[in-house]
Amino acid sequence: MPFTDVAAALQALRALEAKTHAYSHALGVMGHDAATAAPKGSFAGRGKTMGILSEIIYHLETDPEVGELLNFLESHQEQLEPAVQREVALLRKNYDQTCRIPSAEYVAYGVLLNEAQAVWEKAKKGNDFDAFAPYLEKIVDYNRRFAAYRNPALAPYDALLNEYEEGLNTRILDSFFAQLRQAIVPLVSKIQATKQIDDSFLHKTYPVAGQRALANYIMDVMGIDRQYCGLAESEHPYTTGFNTKDVRITTHYYLQDVAASLYSVIHEGGHAIYEMNIGPEYEGTAVGHAVSMGIHESQSRFFENIIGRSRPFIHYIFPKLVEIFPEQLAGVDADQFWQAVNKAEPSLVRTEADELTYSLHIMVRYELEKQLIAGTLAARDVPAAWNRLYKEYLGIDVPNDTQGCLQDSHWSGGSIGYFPSYALGSAYGPQMLLCMEQELPDLWQHIALGDLRQVKGWLQSHIHRHGSLYQPAKLFEMACGPFDARHYTDYLTKKYTELYHL
Amino acid sequence: MPFTDVAAALQALRALEAKTHAYSHALGVMGHDAATAAPKGSFAGRGKTMGILSEIIYHLETDPEVGELLNFLESHQEQLEPAVQREVALLRKNYDQTCRIPSAEYVAYGVLLNEAQAVWEKAKKGNDFDAFAPYLEKIVDYNRRFAAYRNPALAPYDALLNEYEEGLNTRILDSFFAQLRQAIVPLVSKIQATKQIDDSFLHKTYPVAGQRALANYIMDVMGIDRQYCGLAESEHPYTTGFNTKDVRITTHYYLQDVAASLYSVIHEGGHAIYEMNIGPEYEGTAVGHAVSMGIHESQSRFFENIIGRSRPFIHYIFPKLVEIFPEQLAGVDADQFWQAVNKAEPSLVRTEADELTYSLHIMVRYELEKQLIAGTLAARDVPAAWNRLYKEYLGIDVPNDTQGCLQDSHWSGGSIGYFPSYALGSAYGPQMLLCMEQELPDLWQHIALGDLRQVKGWLQSHIHRHGSLYQPAKLFEMACGPFDARHYTDYLTKKYTELYHL
Repeated sequence: MPFTDVAAALQALRALEAKTHAYSHALGVMGHDAATAAPKGSFAGRGKTMGILSEIIYHLETDPEVGELLNFLESHQEQLEPAVQREVALLRKNYDQTCRIPSAEYVAYGVLLNEAQAVWEKAKKGNDFDAFAPYLEKIVDYNRRFAAYRNPALAPYDALLNEYEEGLNTRILDSFFAQLRQAIVPLVSKIQATKQIDDSFLHKTYPVAGQRALANYIMDVMGIDRQYCGLAESEHPYTTGFNTKDVRITTHYYLQDVAASLYSVIHEGGHAIYEMNIGPEYEGTAVGHAVSMGIHESQSRFFENIIGRSRPFIHYIFPKLVEIFPEQLAGVDADQFWQAVNKAEPSLVRTEADELTYSLHIMVRYELEKQLIAGTLAARDVPAAWNRLYKEYLGIDVPNDTQGCLQDSHWSGGSIGYFPSYALGSAYGPQMLLCMEQELPDLWQHIALGDLRQVKGWLQSHIHRHGSLYQPAKLFEMACGPFDARHYTDYLTKKYTELYHL
Repeated sequence: MPFTDVAAALQALRALEAKTHAYSHALGVMGHDAATAAPKGSFAGRGKTMGILSEIIYHLETDPEVGELLNFLESHQEQLEPAVQREVALLRKNYDQTCRIPSAEYVAYGVLLNEAQAVWEKAKKGNDFDAFAPYLEKIVDYNRRFAAYRNPALAPYDALLNEYEEGLNTRILDSFFAQLRQAIVPLVSKIQATKQIDDSFLHKTYPVAGQRALANYIMDVMGIDRQYCGLAESEHPYTTGFNTKDVRITTHYYLQDVAASLYSVIHEGGHAIYEMNIGPEYEGTAVGHAVSMGIHESQSRFFENIIGRSRPFIHYIFPKLVEIFPEQLAGVDADQFWQAVNKAEPSLVRTEADELTYSLHIMVRYELEKQLIAGTLAARDVPAAWNRLYKEYLGIDVPNDTQGCLQDSHWSGGSIGYFPSYALGSAYGPQMLLCMEQELPDLWQHIALGDLRQVKGWLQSHIHRHGSLYQPAKLFEMACGPFDARHYTDYLTKKYTELYHL
């Protein structure tokens, strides 16, 4: 339908956004149900339904009428509020990117990913990379092609990076990772040469009922309103937000690892606080979403590591830990707990890595992804390359692919270019902290009293409330000045020097 | 699009069914999530999404192309398999009924129900029927009008009854309820004149962890495959099935009432067994659903009352009960437990009523619904009429509307004509049992050993597998001969005579 006035076009825009939001909300709830509550054998019927609804979304999003609507609004740019201009730009990006992929390829890729997921799960369980290799090869091919469709002006891997972090590229990342490596690798060596921290008490038996009580307590300390945020259990912890008043986090309780769920809850709680604090004026529009994976991860890791693994915070929560687990923590003091949850050592599995070595795991994946997309590494050669880089960056031998290149679900799920946002998210935090400390001189006194309102207030006003209004790098710069990885390496150096008396 | 051959039309039919199923699957999961897991404050966003998706379903179902498709298939009836003929007939019924309601009225009714739900909840809590009365009045008006749109050939209340039980009418129900009243009322009087059963031990403190273990045990005894059936908790127990391989039941644990969840699980388990055993050949078609509310309720009540409250079954599960709750059941034997869970006495609240008096609660609602739809009773006069009928049928005084005419959610949810299917469902069971006993002479020996395979096998082959292939009365007749309420009253008389030594 041809539009004659901006008001009518804006109304059509809102209706479109409401509709696509409704579908993604429904799919989101189905996915959350699948991961937390659905009976194990129910996947087939759900897969069919989700496939049908996804196809409907695809047609809705690529409808030529959407193109006409965007054309009209773009040609009346000057009559639009800045937030609406940004909204139109975000929808344009999505429209073009989706339309440029031939629908037959889009559908075939969906089928491939569905199979790949099952093949990867089996391959991981059976340490059988060869079974997964042909799928990885195809997934890489599709991603390379899709990158060219979506953003032909960019190098393919840069186009993929842009899916997760608008504006990111390998030039930025190469220098970023080089800086990290230079600072972290010697720090790790120094730590390995000193006396090791004893964290064995973290691995006594911690009954799940107590861990549940701890999770509820932590959510209270974080000031997360349970009226609007659910807590469930799933194999891998995650956060999903349907709107600012309906966010869900999950955790996983391990009987012999009290820190696992504790820090999952703080991490996912950080994601949840972001989702719950996006400006309500953007609700239901393309601007009313978290802006990028990197910024999202910066929020979760800020709470998990910078607050949650800080000495003042641990001193605050430790009495509660002792109250819930008096036997397990008999003879342990708050400082020992603080040291134990910060113990750093090179390890095999990314999701279990400590704050210091985490980025090295990401670097391995970044290097491999670049080469895979460039075509200089074949999927079948990934295990050898993976193991070589783990040796080079982390100094360890990978005993099998299950704990090696088959460990993550990202590639089988089609996500290439996602991993770097984890490292970037970790690196954003310390610079945010510096700005926070400058604006709020008694920040740590409040944290030491378990009062996170200053932290949350700063993040809310500088990050959360803006949703996707600005590009992630711009948002960060407005809050903290130009991003500089040195703040991250300084933070790590200071923290680990103190922890290990280096 | 005009159809030229039956094969193409059938393909279009399947595509339409797949699409509508996908929407109702998604809405079903959202509803289940809302009742079991969603944070309490999340209703507004979900309401918006469910509203949008419901509107899309409405447009999908009332699309003139659906009418053309059905016309074409009806004019090629002779080329269709019997199951497909039935499928077309069911879709035709739905299409005509939905199309005949003007879309403005349909939307306005949705808005009304949404408000009515909240008003009713508040009115129930505050014992304030006057607040709810204008909503009930409007809901009755809409239902009367919709009945005339949908099935102008029938009296309005008969048309409403047909929504829940195809073929049912007030002629059948008047005589059915008269028969019940004649048998049950004197039985209740006799029981009240005898020594009362002591069920106080059911109301000791039963920790929820033990009740959860009991629920899992009961599902095992019922042979419900947990791969395909989830168990969750919600305020009111219910069952929802998305397909035969994804069914969910819920229960509610009351600390001081061990029988509440025990019998909720058996009841909902009976619904689940039905949903899980519909013939897979009908999956995804209009025939692949439970045929009616009455037949559905016959399955749940068969397991709950006829099996679950039988002496042999209780003797089988009692040792497990004692194992889980040794202190609470100290000094109690299986026969005392059997008597306690069958204690009959007139009470105020339908959902807590015993097997004997349950139908009297339904009769009250049936009489009132008839009068409301006929226009001979105004909504504001419901409390007085309700209280008079409770006195007349059950011999008790209703102290307030909260425990009186505001107790059920059906009317505020727009369901008028639904209640009778509960009584009908109860009455179908004993006649099914008679047929089962004739075909399977050692039925009760198996039940006494906790082996329900014969029961489930009979129900599967006579009821479950047929889905909606036959009208409910026809399905019942094929399984058990013409329905005769005498089998129900005979069963009640025999059971309660034995229980109370009348």
